[in-house]
Amino acid sequence: MSRVWNFSAGPAVLPEEVLRQAAGEMLDWHGSGMGVMEMSHRGKEFTAIAAQTEADLRELLAVPAHYRILFMQGGAIAENAIIPLNLIGDKRVADYVVTGSWSQKSQKEARKYAEVNIAASSEASGFTTVPAMAEWKLSPDPAYVFTCTNETIGGVEYPFEPDLAQLGRGEVPVVADMSSHILSRVIDVSKYGLIFGGAQKNIGPAGLTIVIVREDLLGRAMAHCPSAFDYRTVADNGSMYNTPPTYAIYVAGLVFQWLKRQGGVAAIEAQNIAKAKLLYDFLDRSDFYENRVDPACRSRMNVPFFLKDGALDEAFLAESKAAGLVQLKGHKSVGGMRASIYNAMPLAGVQALVDFMRDFAARKA
Amino acid sequence: MSRVWNFSAGPAVLPEEVLRQAAGEMLDWHGSGMGVMEMSHRGKEFTAIAAQTEADLRELLAVPAHYRILFMQGGAIAENAIIPLNLIGDKRVADYVVTGSWSQKSQKEARKYAEVNIAASSEASGFTTVPAMAEWKLSPDPAYVFTCTNETIGGVEYPFEPDLAQLGRGEVPVVADMSSHILSRVIDVSKYGLIFGGAQKNIGPAGLTIVIVREDLLGRAMAHCPSAFDYRTVADNGSMYNTPPTYAIYVAGLVFQWLKRQGGVAAIEAQNIAKAKLLYDFLDRSDFYENRVDPACRSRMNVPFFLKDGALDEAFLAESKAAGLVQLKGHKSVGGMRASIYNAMPLAGVQALVDFMRDFAARKA
Repeated sequence: MSRVWNFSAGPAVLPEEVLRQAAGEMLDWHGSGMGVMEMSHRGKEFTAIAAQTEADLRELLAVPAHYRILFMQGGAIAENAIIPLNLIGDKRVADYVVTGSWSQKSQKEARKYAEVNIAASSEASGFTTVPAMAEWKLSPDPAYVFTCTNETIGGVEYPFEPDLAQLGRGEVPVVADMSSHILSRVIDVSKYGLIFGGAQKNIGPAGLTIVIVREDLLGRAMAHCPSAFDYRTVADNGSMYNTPPTYAIYVAGLVFQWLKRQGGVAAIEAQNIAKAKLLYDFLDRSDFYENRVDPACRSRMNVPFFLKDGALDEAFLAESKAAGLVQLKGHKSVGGMRASIYNAMPLAGVQALVDFMRDFAARKA
Repeated sequence: MSRVWNFSAGPAVLPEEVLRQAAGEMLDWHGSGMGVMEMSHRGKEFTAIAAQTEADLRELLAVPAHYRILFMQGGAIAENAIIPLNLIGDKRVADYVVTGSWSQKSQKEARKYAEVNIAASSEASGFTTVPAMAEWKLSPDPAYVFTCTNETIGGVEYPFEPDLAQLGRGEVPVVADMSSHILSRVIDVSKYGLIFGGAQKNIGPAGLTIVIVREDLLGRAMAHCPSAFDYRTVADNGSMYNTPPTYAIYVAGLVFQWLKRQGGVAAIEAQNIAKAKLLYDFLDRSDFYENRVDPACRSRMNVPFFLKDGALDEAFLAESKAAGLVQLKGHKSVGGMRASIYNAMPLAGVQALVDFMRDFAARKA
């Protein structure tokens, strides 16, 4: 077996240790005589797995006690509807900060359920930057302010945590789609009303959505919110109102334990800084490749880049794949290339990419 | 490693062959250098897996060409909302046939979105039977008639396929929740407008929902239906509008291939008949145990039973577990015991259960 370096934007590379453990336990988890996939979600084996997974996530992100952690289904795209269905409450308007494809999609979906105010947008820059908080035009009484703190497609990451107290508007909850950078850096959960993310980047398998929500925001769901997506119902039932995606929760739990063995989020953040620096420094020094994102807002997780001579794109993709570097094609809406370098991508993988890119440039320049 | 006989109602036992194959491919699927969990859902490897999974399901159930197969998230409980959100259209009323806990829950949820007419109910029997179609009181112009063709908790299964043409109402689509008996018996898909089920009984891991829907029923979603749950959107995007639960789809595909190797649905149905007969015949001949369901409507998949002396329940559960027979406790709303004997439970497992039950009765009677 020869493993490739997998730069997929998600679903994405997982730690080999995690995959080996999952494979080893597939037919018999801890002497139970069952695999995790076969366990009743209400049995003592699986409820122990789910409790440990939640406790480890709470520890890794230092989630305060007055926040609930929910294991849901539907991915971040479904949350684009589920969030307004749950949080609009007696308000009329929700504010959105638009910084790329994902927050754009989020604000469009929200219009089904509320009036949307675009508090700020970086569209004029081609979504290559994040508007400074001082420029955000909040509406007088929004239900929440929505942000996407890492735009997977554009490769744009907030260089600050959105903290509305700095604007004297600390009473408005901040909602953050952290799908593609959750657990990659230390955050202060208390600055947010709700954090959510699809699991398939830094957490585990697709099909699991993590929601971390402040308790006072529960219980506001609209009458036509499906029960399975009413945060209050999900929380009151310990994420087991409907059968949860049990195997995905188990694998997420293995990832959390792996992350703790790495030293936790602060330790992985240091690695992520080193990995991103290696790649961006190489790009900046090159006259063959380029990254077009505002340097202050470059994502540590998703690095889009272009060959200055786009005619070489096909050769780049074919030769990198032959060298065992896969999933480097950029999103179709952006073009060029994209290397996603999540927590589970080691520095050696980024080094292999840089080495290939240097060699390719030398041969083709 | 010693495997138990697992009678869980779901998530439930999977074929050992499937689990072994999944474990063996965990780090490297077919020489790709990636595990399935790590694959981009848009890459050629995973799109091939999804296409094969869909084709195999279509073959196994002989799904006609004018039906679409959707891979969704949220489970059968979310579908209780998603179905009216999609199918009410310009109608006012939906008809429900209530035969137990699950159809009861379904009709309650539907009231968020439409007027509900209970066309028939077996509540007076304690949900131990299925009302004959001749007794169904359909409303004049319902959007659909909802049925749950196997009630997992009560152990009640339709002894007929609901075919409204027999009532001269063939224009009304029949919706069927087949979560706990899909693929266990031959069905005629053309009799239904929509068939759905959570995967975690006869299909694969929890977190995947299968929807089989007649094409003319697409495109009727209410304005406030979340995009990720609009059947038209899901169908138009080949179940990849949002990232699908990729690993669950892959395991479902392995189960479908296993089922084809068993000889397909007709062959597994013959086994299921034999398994159910072994257990029900034993119960009927016993004066120590009993099953209380109308014999014509007994489920082949979920067999609830009682010890006539309920004081022995705890001893039964403890001793059966010690003998390697697990998850036999009945649902809390019914009490007693329940043995779920899905496709992946071999005859040998049912025989082991009957042998234990005979021995236990001999010792305690």
